[in-house]
Amino acid sequence: MLSPMTHPKNASELEHLMRSAIPLARAMDIRVSGYDGQRLVLAAPLAPNVNDKGCAFGGSLGALMTLAGWGLMQLKLAEGGAEADVYVRESSERFLTPVWGPLHAEAWADGEPWAVLISELGVAGKARVELKAEVVAEDGASVAVRQTAGFVAVARGSDG
Amino acid sequence: MLSPMTHPKNASELEHLMRSAIPLARAMDIRVSGYDGQRLVLAAPLAPNVNDKGCAFGGSLGALMTLAGWGLMQLKLAEGGAEADVYVRESSERFLTPVWGPLHAEAWADGEPWAVLISELGVAGKARVELKAEVVAEDGASVAVRQTAGFVAVARGSDG
Repeated sequence: MLSPMTHPKNASELEHLMRSAIPLARAMDIRVSGYDGQRLVLAAPLAPNVNDKGCAFGGSLGALMTLAGWGLMQLKLAEGGAEADVYVRESSERFLTPVWGPLHAEAWADGEPWAVLISELGVAGKARVELKAEVVAEDGASVAVRQTAGFVAVARGSDG
Repeated sequence: MLSPMTHPKNASELEHLMRSAIPLARAMDIRVSGYDGQRLVLAAPLAPNVNDKGCAFGGSLGALMTLAGWGLMQLKLAEGGAEADVYVRESSERFLTPVWGPLHAEAWADGEPWAVLISELGVAGKARVELKAEVVAEDGASVAVRQTAGFVAVARGSDG
């Protein structure tokens, strides 16, 4: 088991953590391309994520959206001064249209669950949050894939 | 876009297709470890698929199950003498327990949808099938992750 890492405080630290701790993020060549305090945007080139049809592999798109949610949790835990491991517990994806170019995934929470998350973590040692993620199609306007995912944060030192 | 490939006729051809056409399958070091005509089993080592906690990354587990379903479709299309591109249209995953060792995913169809799939493809140029997949936990008995996924086969030359 790895030793716990401090949560990244900004997009650049998150990109470093993601690529150093998760080999698949490196294999997919994922970069953090934006974070405005609400939404985290990840990007990856098509080439390492292509499938047999020449478009983006569904497994890559799913992993990119899951990493966007996991990354957003990391940033929000750092902002809240909490230390917790983050696990995905369930997710569902709808693939609406193939992606023939670079991959861009954006994750966010509906509402503002972050204060409750930090407070529950402090009280119960564990808290759950539901996140949304989307991959945008080439036209930059329509949605190619939608994901809803439940993430659990488990305070470090807690037994989950 | 890649030129269409003939569907693999056995586990060995499937492994070759998967690793040559899908770079992520190679990055995850996926092997075909079994096919009995009903269930396809894929395996991958933990190291290229590990996460920040030292267990298997959820995105790798999702991609492995999706590839197991995609691979089973390839074999069934070959057996039915059909030529079609296979896309995942929706999927949902439940992550029940972390995986701390090698990854094994198994995909199958409930019932026997294969004759109907081949026949619908011939008539409509397109057909849908729902597949199940599971990742087995280290004890070899309990289930670590469950997936249900809808796949669409689009006859080559059809516009989908």
